[in-house]
Order: sequence, then C-alpha cells, then structure tokens
Amino acid sequence: MKERNGSDPKNRILDAAISLFAQKGFAAVGVREIAAEAGVNIAMISYYFEGKVGILKEILEEFFCRYFLVFEGVDDKSKSPEDCVRGLIHKMVHFVRENTELAMVSYNEIPLDLPEITELKANRITAMIQNISGLVLRMGLDPKDSFLIAVVGPSLISTIFTNFRFRPVMKQVFPFEFDDAYYERYAETISTLFLRGIEGLAQERREKKGGAK
Amino acid sequence: MKERNGSDPKNRILDAAISLFAQKGFAAVGVREIAAEAGVNIAMISYYFEGKVGILKEILEEFFCRYFLVFEGVDDKSKSPEDCVRGLIHKMVHFVRENTELAMVSYNEIPLDLPEITELKANRITAMIQNISGLVLRMGLDPKDSFLIAVVGPSLISTIFTNFRFRPVMKQVFPFEFDDAYYERYAETISTLFLRGIEGLAQERREKKGGAK
Repeated sequence: MKERNGSDPKNRILDAAISLFAQKGFAAVGVREIAAEAGVNIAMISYYFEGKVGILKEILEEFFCRYFLVFEGVDDKSKSPEDCVRGLIHKMVHFVRENTELAMVSYNEIPLDLPEITELKANRITAMIQNISGLVLRMGLDPKDSFLIAVVGPSLISTIFTNFRFRPVMKQVFPFEFDDAYYERYAETISTLFLRGIEGLAQERREKKGGAK
Repeated sequence: MKERNGSDPKNRILDAAISLFAQKGFAAVGVREIAAEAGVNIAMISYYFEGKVGILKEILEEFFCRYFLVFEGVDDKSKSPEDCVRGLIHKMVHFVRENTELAMVSYNEIPLDLPEITELKANRITAMIQNISGLVLRMGLDPKDSFLIAVVGPSLISTIFTNFRFRPVMKQVFPFEFDDAYYERYAETISTLFLRGIEGLAQERREKKGGAK
C-alpha cells in the first residue's frame, strides 16, 4: 500500500482506482482492493461514490475535463489552420504523456456499455467535435459532414492513445528510447501524416463538388 | 447457454471464451464461467489449455494466423503501390468486420503483459512488418526506418480496430447506419487519408536527403 497521507480519502480512493484500473482493467478490480490500496474503510467508497461505477464516472469526468482543455483555444485565427492542427497534436501527445494512467483507463473503458456513463460520454464527445468545427472548416472539410468527422477525429485520437497503450509490445519490437526527442519527432510525424491526409480528403471534396456542378 | 452441439469440446471452449472475453474483457471472466458457457466440465479446460492464459494464447494464435493472411500477397508488383495499399485497407476492414469478436478480444488483450504470450506477439508483429517492407519501400519510405514504420503501421491498424471498438459510442454520437455502403466509403476515406499522409512523409524524407547532400 502506497503512502497517500497528503490527500483526503476521496482523492486517495480515486488515485488508487486509477492505478489499479490501469494495471488490471476496470472489470478485474474489486472495491475491496481499491479500499485496501487507498488505505480507507470500504464504507468510504459507498459514501463518496456509491460503488465502483461511481468511481469510474468520476475518473471519466476528470479525464474529459482535463482533455477538454487541450482543445480549448486550439482554433487560433491568427495562425494558419496547419499550425493550429500541429499545435493541437503536440498538446494531445503532451497531455497523454503527462496523464498516462488517467488517459489509458478512460480510453480503455470508454467502449464499456454502462448506462450510468452513456450520456456523459456522448455529451463530452459532441462538445469536443463542436470545439474544433471552425478549424475543420478552415482545413477545407465540411464540419457538418459527420462521416468525415467520425473518421478523421477518432483516427487521430486512437493513433496517439494506442501509441501509449501498446508501449510494452513496441518496446520489444522497436529499438528506440521513449524520451523527449522521441515525442517531439512523433508529434511532428503524425502531424505531417494527418495534415497531408486531410488535405487529400479536402481535395477530393472540392473535385466532387466541381464535378457535380 | 448457447447450443454448440456441432463442434468438439475444444472449439466450444474457444468460442465461449471469445464471446465472453469480447463482452467482459479477459480479466473479468473465470474458467468456471467459460466451462458453463461451453457446456463442458471445467477439467476439460485444464486438459486442452492448462488454464485461462492458455485459452488466450490459442485465441491470439488464431487471430494472428487469420490476420496474417490479410497481408499475404498484398505487395503485388503488377499494381501501383497506391492500389496495393488501398487493397490492403479494404481487406483489413473486411477482416475485422467478418471476425469482430476475435479481433476485438485480440486487440484489447495485446497490451496485456503476460510472459506466456510475449514472444508470440513480438514474432507475429515482426513478421507482418517484414511482409509489407517491399510495399513500404515502393511508397517512398525507408523500410529500415523503424521510427516511421512504428508510427504509420500502428496508426492505420488502431484507426480500423478502434472504429469497431468504439461502435457503441459512435452510434450515440453519429447518425449513420453501419452497412455495406458505410464500410465501402469508410475504407475509401481512410485509404485517401493514409495514402496522402504517407506521400507527405515520403516527400519530407526526400527533401531532407536532398538538403543533406
């Protein structure tokens, strides 16, 4: 059991749960284990969260709250859309690097079909899409074309999150160090990959519109 | 309990495990539950697989075996590299659509740090990378540049697998039907996204080589 004397019981429970869910997955961890890791009585979990799903809900709230900040102010009209996307990608990589356990638990459990968190997920994802719709338009895509939004956005997000999720396997297969230089080159590389890709999709869209006239 | 009278006990155990792991995750399922779902005595699981990890190992073997076929013959010299990549992407989407539960279980559990499956994973991933190295070269990238391979390959794979993994959330947020027309347009769209993206990376590489001369 780790020392968590500095924080209150509620935060100790959250920290313990994030760490255990990240290691073993939400389904494999019991409230008894969380209470032991946090150094609290099991009744505290009922008191603060009602149960395990309540903890996950609070973890997802915290994740979306911090993640939302990554998208805030990303569409800066004084910069080219390319520079905005490049900036967003660097911020996303930095965010997952700084909040790896929180990000992995949230990313792994988002597909879970729990009624208690359905609305929260849908609302936050919709809000994030709205937040970048101006930038999407400046990139030459139609923000109302939900098909393209549903392809490009999740592709970029899964690319970054999966890079962290598959780290143990990547360490066995590839020879590089995961240091500052790696993350800088990584963010630059996927920026080029997605910027040129989005350009290609915008060009196809213009050609189709031109052809339809 | 489903009727699985048509197949032998070993296959019934595998089918039951794939279905349960897909619903609840590997960690949350016990051998007792698998035996009940398969309609076999629990001793059968020890006899055929030694235990739960043995079942997962066999599931991953089956997954990699079928998945490997997707990559076979993909570098067809009589076609342009663009057509080969487009063909590969269509085959990958079709594969995950046809084998969704097997693919989701394997994709979800690949990050698991189990010593029994470490070598299997590393070997199969290395073999798949070698299989497409000729095509990578024809696309203008350096197949020995493990950094780019480690970015582009996993990005494409996670894009496709995540599309299926996040289906419940996507159904809440986006309005479209996941039918044949959707998958055709989906495969075409990510083909353009990645082909134009890879072209951009190849161009950067040529410019850097030119600059270094």
